[in-house]
Order: sequence, then structure tokens, then C-alpha cells
Amino acid sequence: MVDVKVYRIPMSAPDDMSSLKELIDSGQINPTEIVAVLGKTEGNGCVNDFTRGFATSAFRSFLARILGQTEQQVEEKIAFVMSGGTEGVMTPHATIFTKNEVDTNTELSREKGLTVSVGFTRNFLPEEIGTLTMVQEVERVVLGLMETAGIEEKEDVHFVQIKCPLLTSDRILEAKSRGKSVAVEDTYKSMGYSRGASALGVAVALEEVNRTAVTEESILNDWSLYSSVASTSAGVELMNCEIILMGNSKKSMSKYRIGHSVMNDAIDLNAVIEAMKNSGLEIDKLPTAEDNNRIVNILAKAEASPDGLVRNRRHTMLTDSDINHTRQARAVVNGVIASITGDPMVYVSGGAEHQGPAGGGPIAVIIKK
Amino acid sequence: MVDVKVYRIPMSAPDDMSSLKELIDSGQINPTEIVAVLGKTEGNGCVNDFTRGFATSAFRSFLARILGQTEQQVEEKIAFVMSGGTEGVMTPHATIFTKNEVDTNTELSREKGLTVSVGFTRNFLPEEIGTLTMVQEVERVVLGLMETAGIEEKEDVHFVQIKCPLLTSDRILEAKSRGKSVAVEDTYKSMGYSRGASALGVAVALEEVNRTAVTEESILNDWSLYSSVASTSAGVELMNCEIILMGNSKKSMSKYRIGHSVMNDAIDLNAVIEAMKNSGLEIDKLPTAEDNNRIVNILAKAEASPDGLVRNRRHTMLTDSDINHTRQARAVVNGVIASITGDPMVYVSGGAEHQGPAGGGPIAVIIKK
Amino acid sequence: MVDVKVYRIPMSAPDDMSSLKELIDSGQINPTEIVAVLGKTEGNGCVNDFTRGFATSAFRSFLARILGQTEQQVEEKIAFVMSGGTEGVMTPHATIFTKNEVDTNTELSREKGLTVSVGFTRNFLPEEIGTLTMVQEVERVVLGLMETAGIEEKEDVHFVQIKCPLLTSDRILEAKSRGKSVAVEDTYKSMGYSRGASALGVAVALEEVNRTAVTEESILNDWSLYSSVASTSAGVELMNCEIILMGNSKKSMSKYRIGHSVMNDAIDLNAVIEAMKNSGLEIDKLPTAEDNNRIVNILAKAEASPDGLVRNRRHTMLTDSDINHTRQARAVVNGVIASITGDPMVYVSGGAEHQGPAGGGPIAVIIKK
Amino acid sequence: MVDVKVYRIPMSAPDDMSSLKELIDSGQINPTEIVAVLGKTEGNGCVNDFTRGFATSAFRSFLARILGQTEQQVEEKIAFVMSGGTEGVMTPHATIFTKNEVDTNTELSREKGLTVSVGFTRNFLPEEIGTLTMVQEVERVVLGLMETAGIEEKEDVHFVQIKCPLLTSDRILEAKSRGKSVAVEDTYKSMGYSRGASALGVAVALEEVNRTAVTEESILNDWSLYSSVASTSAGVELMNCEIILMGNSKKSMSKYRIGHSVMNDAIDLNAVIEAMKNSGLEIDKLPTAEDNNRIVNILAKAEASPDGLVRNRRHTMLTDSDINHTRQARAVVNGVIASITGDPMVYVSGGAEHQGPAGGGPIAVIIKK
Repeated sequence: MVDVKVYRIPMSAPDDMSSLKELIDSGQINPTEIVAVLGKTEGNGCVNDFTRGFATSAFRSFLARILGQTEQQVEEKIAFVMSGGTEGVMTPHATIFTKNEVDTNTELSREKGLTVSVGFTRNFLPEEIGTLTMVQEVERVVLGLMETAGIEEKEDVHFVQIKCPLLTSDRILEAKSRGKSVAVEDTYKSMGYSRGASALGVAVALEEVNRTAVTEESILNDWSLYSSVASTSAGVELMNCEIILMGNSKKSMSKYRIGHSVMNDAIDLNAVIEAMKNSGLEIDKLPTAEDNNRIVNILAKAEASPDGLVRNRRHTMLTDSDINHTRQARAVVNGVIASITGDPMVYVSGGAEHQGPAGGGPIAVIIKK
Repeated sequence: MVDVKVYRIPMSAPDDMSSLKELIDSGQINPTEIVAVLGKTEGNGCVNDFTRGFATSAFRSFLARILGQTEQQVEEKIAFVMSGGTEGVMTPHATIFTKNEVDTNTELSREKGLTVSVGFTRNFLPEEIGTLTMVQEVERVVLGLMETAGIEEKEDVHFVQIKCPLLTSDRILEAKSRGKSVAVEDTYKSMGYSRGASALGVAVALEEVNRTAVTEESILNDWSLYSSVASTSAGVELMNCEIILMGNSKKSMSKYRIGHSVMNDAIDLNAVIEAMKNSGLEIDKLPTAEDNNRIVNILAKAEASPDGLVRNRRHTMLTDSDINHTRQARAVVNGVIASITGDPMVYVSGGAEHQGPAGGGPIAVIIKK
Repeated sequence: MVDVKVYRIPMSAPDDMSSLKELIDSGQINPTEIVAVLGKTEGNGCVNDFTRGFATSAFRSFLARILGQTEQQVEEKIAFVMSGGTEGVMTPHATIFTKNEVDTNTELSREKGLTVSVGFTRNFLPEEIGTLTMVQEVERVVLGLMETAGIEEKEDVHFVQIKCPLLTSDRILEAKSRGKSVAVEDTYKSMGYSRGASALGVAVALEEVNRTAVTEESILNDWSLYSSVASTSAGVELMNCEIILMGNSKKSMSKYRIGHSVMNDAIDLNAVIEAMKNSGLEIDKLPTAEDNNRIVNILAKAEASPDGLVRNRRHTMLTDSDINHTRQARAVVNGVIASITGDPMVYVSGGAEHQGPAGGGPIAVIIKK
Repeated sequence: MVDVKVYRIPMSAPDDMSSLKELIDSGQINPTEIVAVLGKTEGNGCVNDFTRGFATSAFRSFLARILGQTEQQVEEKIAFVMSGGTEGVMTPHATIFTKNEVDTNTELSREKGLTVSVGFTRNFLPEEIGTLTMVQEVERVVLGLMETAGIEEKEDVHFVQIKCPLLTSDRILEAKSRGKSVAVEDTYKSMGYSRGASALGVAVALEEVNRTAVTEESILNDWSLYSSVASTSAGVELMNCEIILMGNSKKSMSKYRIGHSVMNDAIDLNAVIEAMKNSGLEIDKLPTAEDNNRIVNILAKAEASPDGLVRNRRHTMLTDSDINHTRQARAVVNGVIASITGDPMVYVSGGAEHQGPAGGGPIAVIIKK
């Protein structure tokens, strides 16, 4: 049996370790049990967002010191997934996952509990980013993670968070110097390709889409192909994918549980409430303060609908050349969720290519049982 | 007796007159009855947002041609108030108000109906923008507008939309050349001063704040002073204030009605529903599709809370040097409203200085009775 | 014989007609002789830059009133080419070209003088923007313009300014609804495709590149194909190309002359001086104040070198997700030119795809003889 | 006697230590001799630019490991001054200064050589930032640094680089909670106040302005007060000032030398060349490739002229609400310098309040003798 715990901590800057330190100092978190750190950092969430790398570096170095290990040892054990962009009222924060084996002679718990598993793909070459090669490598790792998480049914997987790489001018140049061409030459757009291919890897692994339907051409093109639980986020600070898989398992005696739904568009209030219900909350139209108190965090994806319409009304996110559309979409979806839960400190990541239907995205809720 | 009608039309660009033309061609709108055009245009909503001027110029020139009048004649009769910034899912659109005298021998209508009145302050000098002089001149015009709108009780005023001027480098230089100093030298910040002083003019007129409490020093400083119905929006295209006052009156036989509430912060879902109720809708927790169908438009103000907190959580809007905070606040508030009404084409204007409490803002709902 | 004159006027806003009015009122410009208006307006120069449309609308309407013609009549006769983006120290302004037939019994002038000719392609469908169809249609019009400009040798063409269309979400949707696919779905990127295809049309017309070398695949791909005199600028406000061709001709008795050179990168100071020399100025290393006084305007293109390098040093324009690279490139090239001429009011337009070598662009200088 | 050396290294990211590592590994730099690191990092250079903190953290941690010291020990000995913003063609890079005592029985060197000295003010409270208290504390440290640098004449000081703090929402709130008011509540504007007060500290220390002329009111107001050698840069990552003072001294046997001039505006090409001459290069109008090869780095300040004019032409930097003016000014000044030296990897920092005349800024050139 495993026990999995989840902690949400505010951050006053990308390198603010004070809340984590407090939780460790007070004995609430045993640092040796940390398996994943999922952060929202206050950069632009786009190509040149170095707050992700800064936060990763700060967490890694802090934990190495605490654990008396090298940074490399820490890195091999803990997934650091930082998603940039806290537009609107979103509060920069991190979610810390701990996991420990519990030697118990009690039978399997009746009720499934939260489980989590982390893994890493190999490093990708620039020319592999956003391609079928990426899809397949992500699929391979996701299948392994289901097993190590103790999840038997694919329906028990509720959120697969992936941090994936992007292309920079340097990387494109390097690929070209070897005679290779990349999926897309625009660095901002490369984030979308990387997110999309990673999400399709999840979709194939969980049999949400037919493996044969996913071709090189369908990536960032055929929006009917998507995962309802993938959440992928690109960053300049890595060349492989870091994957955090979350679900419920009978092998977990965690006091937490996760559920999910899919937002059909950025203002899909019903899906937010549906995800709360699926996590185990019983809600009549709107949650009560008591319901909201049981929520540990909400994890959602946001994007500007690619056809330029929401509920058949025109939006201008795709033609705004001053603010990238992912930045605007995050502000909207975070606002919608926060208006229901009364708490702006929830995780919303931008760019939902092949994650939920076009213009929408997966949303998961983690609650205290 | 007057009859007042309201029309909401989408715009595909700041100079798109096609929907208005259709309504006039089909006889639904009598162009001689138009008294105000309240638009949301797709610029940055800040200093160098020329979409406001472009839309104003397009409406003025289009109506001059239709009415066979000069542009100046049109301008003296119709208020064109354009608010820039349609971030997130907000749809660029305009709300057209018509008003005509109805010779009726029926008694006063039992139930109050929507009434509207438009007026203009004198042109301000650059050094007057954002000062007590502005407060007093706005107060004077608002009091006159209540009378022409046929409103006797101040409680019947539900929204006072003001378009006010801002400072540019040129204007500051001109004032300085005459030995005058301006309220603030930062052009973006001058928008806040102008909005704030205009809003305090409304607050004083409607006795929401004590006249003596409003001093030069309290402008953009003492946030306890505010109007619950003022909505002010600054633009580079004018040097006076254009004012549209809306309320309910027994002297109006309009089939529309208006109500309002005050959002305490950007995610105040309850206030949105409260405003709906105050307009006359009967709602149990969340509106039904039928309720939403009766809504003609929602008019709201948005701002980043000046203390950097929402529900005691940190937001980063005030420290984001890439996207001005008004742009982010609009995306959030529009998203919250749209998630409830199911329609992103509602009016949200940014920068709510002295309009509602700090971080919040007035919200009005116009419905079909 | 023709006489061609050139006037450069500052603009305090996109709709500021005061300087033009002054020149007309004072008799310096005969409005019936105006053939082209080439403006730099203070928008973002990208997809949602409506300052271009606003300025065009203002000039058209102003001249219609002055000339006693309809706006359509004006539009058919005068080319209004507005380029957005005045980053850095660039001053918003317009260059006005007049042309009139002169009945002279003098022989052909010994020295060639400035000549100008304007024309229009047909409207393009969204799916044609940025394709070979566009290349060919531009080529056709350019060849006609050489003739009407009285230019016999292709070497006498020194600048071909083109305003070309771009894709918006609406236009992409419309094409898709007819089962057509567009050159690129990213609206910002569509500007590059449109600029690139238009420039190749010039290159083919002037035999700068081999017609057979230009294929659908080479557009925005094979940077060895370029024109040294094309300057193309995309805008949302039109669906065809407006073309202003400039050169020197023996059939012109103009007191102005034009010359050009090609900047190899954004900091190519030598090319700026070379262009000045080619226009007729005699310069020793740096121009004198007297030299600079003879300059009427400088017209140049700017772009971020696509390989991410300038003089083998890394630049970050292509990875900056907050400011589009065209905006930064304009600031640099305008700064470089202004530092030499001592005047920031010169025309620099962004996005030089197939206009000069990768990372560079054409530069033309118009001087008083 | 001291020996001072200067190295300029490109950085591929804020935490790229590879070039420094190479110089250390190859024995060119003795890490124990490093006294200052002056970096240009690729953030927005404004309030939420965390690339400065990221780079500082990376350098500190890298050098701590190399030197076998704690990060705190490193921090007390080496000044890390990171300036954000590499707009236009500016290349992210760092300049490394080393200094070592040389026991020599030779007489004082005939020719002065480069000397450098680093120091730190105490931490400031939020309410002290941008005030006279800051001016005075900076003055005190600068005077001490002159002495430790072995500089006797104030004319021998050529560049005083200061990294100073800024206000964030948090810090303003904290001051208010103690009943204190801050110099300015706008976080972006606080950078200007901090830069301005720090620069005036230098000006007073070097007797460039009269001590009595500097009052609380003159900060960011009286532009006639300025230093010709101060270069100040605000950042979120510190609460004190880090100061690097550079000049020439007879007590230095450095093979490098520094000179400076003052740019009167952003396009002051003559001042760039003047600074080169003052550093010791003999130049006829424009430098030769050989001259440029002797340049180690150029350090300059840039700003948008506060009156909105350059050479009496309007610029739009102060009314552009999408791109902060410091970002645009940096692109221009770097472009101007790079066009002369042929190298975009020079240091240009934005916001030159009280550093050079309004709209201009100091410029220093370090050359190999």
C-alpha cells in the first residue's frame, strides 16, 4: 500500500522556498517522501519564460541541501514541473506530492485513494519535438507510470501532467546544422507542437484515441483527437518530458481523491462543477464554503479556441499581436474557476492542443476525502 | 412619456457598421432616435488605443450620412462612448440606445422603465484632468442629466457611463509651456486619474459620498470614496467628458429595465447574480437559459485590486510589466460574467478607480421586462 | 514629361490631417496632383493594428471633401499605403507624392528625375494570400507600373512599396467553410507570407530572381531569393495589394531623385551611407548637416535575422514572446539611420521576407537634386 | 599596485556558465580574483524580470562551488550586477572583472590603467527607496570606493554601475502596514525613482551637482541635476545597492583603460565616437576594424526622452502602452552603438534618470591599451 499526500503552497517569487521550508521544519512534510513539485510561476508562460527554470533550480538546490544529496540525485527522483503564466488573479504557487510505502496488514482499502507516479522520457533531439516520435516515447512512459502508480483501469487515471521541451533559435540552428528540419520554425508555435504531441502520447496510452489515427499530419491539425486527462506545458529548461501521472487506486490509502471533467470552452462553468462532483463532492448547483474547503487544488488547461469563436461569439485572442493568446486564456479560465471556489490559487496552464476539445481542456479536482 | 430601446450588435472591426446598417435598413432602429452608442473596441484599452477614435469616427460619419447631417450636428446630439480592450473571450460590440417622446394620454406607467440621458462637460485643459475641477464639472452635468432623464430619486440611477480624456506627451508639454503642472506625468497613469475624478463627480452628484470629503488629495488615494454606479473610461480621442446616464423612471414606458450591484472583487460571482436579480430576474442560485435570454447587456467595471491581493491571495497584475493590469482585469471579469450568462459579448471596462470598492466595481444588467 | 514632388509631414495621431491641410491651404500642394500617401502610423504594426485603417480612412475622407469627390473615386486614384509601428524614436509621419503632366517643348531632361506610379492588384481570396498566385498577380501589376512611370531600364526602379493583406481568424474560417486551406493559420505569421509573396512578385518582375526558381515551397523558405527594391507591408484593412513604384526617369523633370542600397543586417551603417551616395549625395565617411538637409525621406525595411544571429552574435528577438520581433527590428534600423541623418522621422517598415538578404533589407533615399 | 582585467562572455541563457567555466578551466581567469560580474540578461528589464535574479543565483552558486566557499561568502566579496533587457540586436552577456594586488618594485606606472572597486550600501526599507536617504547612503559608499580603487581625482572616475532595488506590491503593503508611505505606488515607476536617487548619490559624491541642490522634490523632477558617469539599474532581487566603480589610476598596472562621454539623446552617434576617443582610440570620423578590435566592452544608458521629443521630432515611446519605454530605448541605443562598432554584444541599460541629460545618458568604453 502507498500513502500519497498533497500540499499547496503560495510562492512570493519563483525562488521562494519559505513555505516549503516551514512545512518541512514543522514536520508536516517529510522531504524524503517528495516525489513531485508542480508549480505555477509568474513569467509569461511562453518561450522566454525563465521563471520556470529559476523555480526548478531553486527547488532542486533547496531539496538537495535538505536531503544531503547532489542536485543530480534529486533530479532523478523528483519531478519538477513548472508551468509559467499567472495572468489575471492567479496566485503563483506550487503543489507538492509526497508518497511513501506503508507496510500494512489491513486488506486493500475499500475506497480508492489518490496515487501518483513520476517518470521521464529520454531527451529529444530538436527535430523530434512535436513529432510522432515524441507521441510514442510519451506513450511508453505513461504506460509504465500507470503500473508503478498501482492503477489497473485506465478510467482511474485522472490527470497526466507533462512538462515538455520547446524549440529556440539555437536549437533550430543546431538541427539544421545536421541537415534536419524541425516541426515548426516559429519558437512560440513550437510550444504548441510539443504540447500537442505529448498530449497525443497520453491519449494513445490510455486508448482515448486510436493509435492508427495519430499520424505526423494529425498533430496540431486534427482536433478531434484528444486526451481528456492530459495537461502538457512546454518550457525552455528541459529537452525531455517530465511526467506526473495522477489517479485513484485501491492500493492507495491516501486521504485524498481526484476526479476530472472536460471544459468544452473557456467559460464552461458546468464542467468545473462536474469535476468537483466527480472528485467526490456533492454539490447542488454551486458549491458551499464547506465544499470549497475540502479542495486541495484544481488543475486545468486553458486555450483560445482556434476557430476564433466562443459560444459562437468572436474573440480577439488570436489576432492580438501584443498579448499571446495563451496568456489571455489562462486569465479567463482561472477567473471562472476562482469565482466558483472563491480561491484564485488554482493551477491553470495554457495551450491545450489535443488536451480536451478545441477551445476547451481537462480539469481535475483533488479533494480531502 | 419617453420610450427607450436598447440594441446590442457585434462588430467585426472598429469600423464595422454592417450590423447597425442592417437594423436601420430593416426598420428596427429609427436612426433619428439614436441618443447613445456605447462600444467595446478591440484595442489595448490604454493610452495609444486608437480603435476608440476609429470606431467613433466610423459611427459618426456613418450616421451623418444616414441622417443627412454634418458630423458636427451628429456629435452634438449623440454620445459616442468607446471603451477599448476586449481581452480574453470578450466580443467587440456596441450597445445602441434610442429614445423618443411618446405622446400618450395614458397615465404614468405603473412600473418604471429604462430611461437614458446623454450630456457633455466642457473641454478640459490638460492641467484640469484628474483634479477637483473635473469632479465638479462632472457633478454639474450629472445632476442635469438626472432631470432630463425624468429620474426623481437618486436610487433610480443605475449606471453612469463616462468617457473621459487622458494626458499624452503632447498635452503635458503644452500645459508645461503655459507654466502649468499636470496631475501625473505618466500617460498611462493619467487614465486612472481622469477615471477617478470623473467617478467622484458622479459620487458627489448622487450623494454617495460627502462633498467635503472629496479633496484634491483624496483623488486616487482615499479608496473609501466611491460611486456604486459610475463607470468611467479614458480615451485619447476627446478632451471633455461624454456622459450616458441610465436608470428607471415612471416617465418611461420602455420595455427594458436596469438594475445594478457592486462586485467586491474581480471574482465576485454573487454580485453578478445579485445584479441580475436587481434588474428584475428571479434567480435560484444560477440563472436559467430563459433568464439569460432576457438579458440585453451587462455593463461592468474591472480592476486589479491595488493592494495586490484577491481573497487574501497574491496576484501579479500590478508587477507584470508586459501586460498592463487593466487588460488582465477585463479578461477575468468578462470571463466570470460570461461563465454565468453563457455569453461573452458583455461590456467590461477596465480601471475602476473610485468606482466601487478597491479591486471591485459596479455591475449593471439591462433586461427585457 | 511629368513632374513629381515629395512632401514629408509629421502626424500627431493617425487621423491628424493638419499638416496636409496647411500644405494645401498654402498652395504648396495641389490636391488634384496627389497620387500616393505613404504613412508610418503609431500602432503595433501587427495583425490588430487598426491605426493603418484609421489613417487611411482619415486621408481618404479628408481628400474626398477637399476634392469634392466620393471616397471611392479618391480610392481609385490615390494609393494609401500605411505601415504600422513607430517603435523607438521613429516619428509617425506621411510622405505625399504628387505627379502632374507638364507640357514642355524642351527636350528630354539630361538628368533623370524621380518618377512614381501607383496601381492595384485584384482582391485576393484568403487562400491566395502568401501563395504563387499572389506572386504572379503582383508581377503583372509591377510590369505595368514601370511603363506608366516612364521607366525603361529595370535598374532605374529603386523602391517598390506594397501594401498587402493578411489573414484573420474570420478570413481563415471563411476559406475553410469553402473547403480551402490557407498558407498558414497563425494570423501574425500570415503577415510574413503575404509580405514574402508580394516581394517575390517584384523580384520576378524586375528579373532579380529567375521565375522558375520561385515555387510554392520557396516562399518563406528559400531566403536566397529576394528583391533589392521591394518593400512590403501587411495590413488588415485591405484584401488586395496597393503598389507604389518609384524610380528615376528621363521623362521626369522632377527636382527630386532616388537611389537605393541593401542593408545586409540591421546595423549595416555602410549600406545607409551607400544608399545616400547612390541617391546622388557625395559623402566622405559620414554625411554633413548640409547633406542631410537635402534628404526628403529614407525608406527602409527591417527584420530580425531568421537564424537568431547578427554578426555572429545571438539576438533574442525571435524568442521574445512579449514583443513581436518586427517591432524590435524597426526600433533598431530606425535608430541606426537616425543616428546618421540626425532625423528620426524616416520610414522603416518591419518584416523583410524576400526583401533583401535574410536579416537585412532594401533602403532607398529620396533627395532634392 | 593592482592589476585589473576584464572579460566579456556571451550567455546562451541566464544560467549559462559555460563560457566562464571555459575561461577558468583554461587558466585565463583565476576565480579567486573575480570582484564583479556585470550582466545583461534576456528578461523584460522591468519589475517582474526574474532573469536578473536567476543569473545572479547561477553565478553565485557556480562560483561558490568553484571556490569552495558558501554562497554568502561569495556574495560578500563579489558584486553581481545584472541588468535586464536585451531588446533589438543586443546579445545577452556578462563582463567579468578581476583584480589582484601586484607586489612590484617598479615605480608607479606612467600611464594610468583601469581600476575597479566594488561595495554595497546597507539594505533599504521600502519607504527609503527613491528618496534622499538613498542619495546619501550611495554617496557615502561611492566616496569609499574611490579610495579603495586608488583614484585621487574625481575626473578619473568614468563609470559607476549601481544595481538598486525596486518596489513590489508586497513591499508597498509592508511599508503601509508600518504606517509609512513610499515614494511612488506604481511598481514600474518605482524603478525610475530608485535609479534616479542612486544616480544623484553618485553625482553628489563626485561633485557633479551641488549637494544643496538635491532635495526630496528634485528627485525625478529637476532633470538639470545629473551624473555623467552613473549607470543605475533596478531589480527585484535585492534591497540594497551594489556598486561597481570604474576609473583609471596610476596605482593600476592594468593593460586596460576606460574613457567616457555623454550621449545627449538616443541617437547621439558623435558621443559614441567621442567616448571611444576618450578611452584612448584615435579615430577619424568612424572607427576602423582595428580600432573596434581593441574595444572590450561599451557600457551605456538609454532612456526615452521625457518630453516626448528627439531632435524636435515626436516619439511614441511614452504613449505606447504595450511596450515599456525602457525596452524601446535600449533597442535604439544598442543599435546605434553596434552599427559603429560592428558588435551588438555591448552593455546598454535602460532608464537614465539623473544619468546624463534628459533623454540621454553616460557612455563608457573599455579598451585594451
